[in-house]
Amino acid sequence: MKMSSTSRRLLLFSNSSMAGEEYLQFASSLINQFKDGWGMSKALFIPYALRTHEDYTEKVKKAFHPFGIEIEGIHKAEDPVAAVRSAKAIFVGGGNTFQLLKGLYDHKLIDPIRKSVLQEGVPYVGWSAGSNVATASICTTNDMPIVHPPSFHALALVPFNINPHFVDADPNSTHMGETREQRIEQYHEIEGMPPVLALREGSFLEVHDDSAFLRGRSGAKLFRTGKPVEAFEPEANLSFLLESS
Amino acid sequence: MKMSSTSRRLLLFSNSSMAGEEYLQFASSLINQFKDGWGMSKALFIPYALRTHEDYTEKVKKAFHPFGIEIEGIHKAEDPVAAVRSAKAIFVGGGNTFQLLKGLYDHKLIDPIRKSVLQEGVPYVGWSAGSNVATASICTTNDMPIVHPPSFHALALVPFNINPHFVDADPNSTHMGETREQRIEQYHEIEGMPPVLALREGSFLEVHDDSAFLRGRSGAKLFRTGKPVEAFEPEANLSFLLESS
Ligand SMILES: [Ca+2]
Ligand SMILES: [Ca+2]
Repeated sequence: MKMSSTSRRLLLFSNSSMAGEEYLQFASSLINQFKDGWGMSKALFIPYALRTHEDYTEKVKKAFHPFGIEIEGIHKAEDPVAAVRSAKAIFVGGGNTFQLLKGLYDHKLIDPIRKSVLQEGVPYVGWSAGSNVATASICTTNDMPIVHPPSFHALALVPFNINPHFVDADPNSTHMGETREQRIEQYHEIEGMPPVLALREGSFLEVHDDSAFLRGRSGAKLFRTGKPVEAFEPEANLSFLLESS
Repeated sequence: MKMSSTSRRLLLFSNSSMAGEEYLQFASSLINQFKDGWGMSKALFIPYALRTHEDYTEKVKKAFHPFGIEIEGIHKAEDPVAAVRSAKAIFVGGGNTFQLLKGLYDHKLIDPIRKSVLQEGVPYVGWSAGSNVATASICTTNDMPIVHPPSFHALALVPFNINPHFVDADPNSTHMGETREQRIEQYHEIEGMPPVLALREGSFLEVHDDSAFLRGRSGAKLFRTGKPVEAFEPEANLSFLLESS
């Protein structure tokens, strides 16, 4: 039973850039389509997924400049919690998911971001690792665990998990490491684990309050315990995923 | 400066099976070549990397049966620490590295295994996740973080890391997720991280006291901070990796 509707505006991208394009070219023009409606002329950028915060922020600034979206890096803020509290939009970039989540815990940003996004309706835009941390947990990241966050629980802006950069298994492969699908199935052998939305590159999820739609060009697969895998095409209505179990 | 030699007999496999073969067929026949010299007619098997301990142990038992190597699953032992202490050889199987390492911590087996292997000279054989946990840390696993171990520090039977199932980047790929090589390089952006030996499928490392040799059919790459990546062919002497920094 749905108790009350949640104020929420999220764009969660599988990836930021397509092969042969400038960094963020793919995602930035799509994000720009929401700029006026969602009031995103200025955004706080969280670069913790990479270690070169200044360089990373400059790259992102450059990508959004043509659209008139102003980017401010949180690493420059004296008080990162205050920066989140006053942000008009929050953009969270990809890189290493463990590093990103540890950064959010280290700077005590989990609760402030949740509050801004879920209570104040501040738009959240994430790509790759930035989408992983928006979900229930980072348990379905593809990244290497290069640092140890205190928990894998994440921002839980949605009650499911995302697997970004999803790739379907190659039937001709002789590689013996697990396929992406097998890795997600191993996760679901653990009781009580949430659904996993596997976003192919070129896909993103648009969440507005209690509605969620699959956008982009490449579709997604949905993994749920005890159910067959489902395939979804672009524009599919995935709002049912927002009903918490 | 090397202070004293370490007693140590390890076989660390990238993977257990090659495409189209029975489970463990590839590794078991190679492990058998060490059976008499290393006294491995009976081994304690640690199945924690998968959740189906009994099924997993049965599969491993079956694979080693033709060679007269008797397998006992640690999950049947009333006291897992005592089982490690009395083991004549320790075999650690692949699956999910996080689940495996958490199992070792939960059952308080880190120190007992280290003691058996490094002080009593008990042979240790690992494949895939079982090789990851033998090293300094699991920070270079390919697996998904489906459970949260209290630390990523592992058994440290060797002072470096392994990346199993290593795959070279495909120059024709349009996938935008990080290549394996890029993931390892991100790890090495963190100061003080140990070398990473990237074992292609079909490779394994033989460690005897202070000697280490690359074995198998497919070679390896070595990643070290501040040094160019090095390629090694089968039979290469990698003993220099055992000198702790
Ligand atoms: Ca990444
Ligand atoms: Ca594995």
